[in-house]
Amino acid sequence: MKNRFKSLIVNTILLFSMLPLAHADNSNTKKIQVVLKSYEQVLNNSDVAGVVKLYTTDGVFMAPHHPSAVGIRAIEGAYKSVFKAIDLDVRFDIVEVETLGDDWAFVRTNSAGSIKFNASGKKNDKSYHQELFLMKKTANGDWKIARYAFSSTNPR
Amino acid sequence: MKNRFKSLIVNTILLFSMLPLAHADNSNTKKIQVVLKSYEQVLNNSDVAGVVKLYTTDGVFMAPHHPSAVGIRAIEGAYKSVFKAIDLDVRFDIVEVETLGDDWAFVRTNSAGSIKFNASGKKNDKSYHQELFLMKKTANGDWKIARYAFSSTNPR
Repeated sequence: MKNRFKSLIVNTILLFSMLPLAHADNSNTKKIQVVLKSYEQVLNNSDVAGVVKLYTTDGVFMAPHHPSAVGIRAIEGAYKSVFKAIDLDVRFDIVEVETLGDDWAFVRTNSAGSIKFNASGKKNDKSYHQELFLMKKTANGDWKIARYAFSSTNPR
Repeated sequence: MKNRFKSLIVNTILLFSMLPLAHADNSNTKKIQVVLKSYEQVLNNSDVAGVVKLYTTDGVFMAPHHPSAVGIRAIEGAYKSVFKAIDLDVRFDIVEVETLGDDWAFVRTNSAGSIKFNASGKKNDKSYHQELFLMKKTANGDWKIARYAFSSTNPR
């Protein structure tokens, strides 16, 4: 009985010693989810300045049919081109968020929505994509997009 | 003078205490580069069994124009379809390898080579892609592909 009591005490201490870690991870996950929601918004608003705020300065944007845009100025230019060509209305579904060490995480998403091609005025209401985001925690605790690759899942 | 000597001793100890970490990281990077070289080989050999060995069991393969293949059996099926449709002869150029914590790393590559479409027999000798690999260290110290997204950088 005494041993059982001891074991209870030890387990309780162990449990509470683990709580701050679990909490930290949970809070990181929530912060990352908020960044993803912000990304969805700035994308749908064709807001280049808003996009730029969400990337690390050394970020890389890997959009299909374009060379990788490396660094924040190249990313800015790439999104300017994207928003000139198309108007998006999409929703991201977060499939996975996983923290990797203290300062990194990845997010895997699927997105669905519409793309309007500004040159022709044509609209595709059934545009589906898959996305892989690599997120980095900056010195002030903000999570930003460090690397981002995506592609269409619509059949060719 | 005595203080300067003390400082030299402290710095030397600090430097040597950091060496194993630097070495470990370097060795991880080399191991990851070997996995990428293996991936290039199995891809060019249309070797499904070889591909499967390079992925984690919970891996995800994100190929354009297909839904994400989640888990090793789905990955196996996806590569079977790929190798039935096309015959690859490509080289990967590793642009970045970065370890993220102890058990994760990412690799960013560009690839160039030829794709032969088996149905038509047509060949594209100027096929260019960009790739983002998320690598995970398994329990026995092997690095495997955990998530992998890519897209063509050829103009649409």
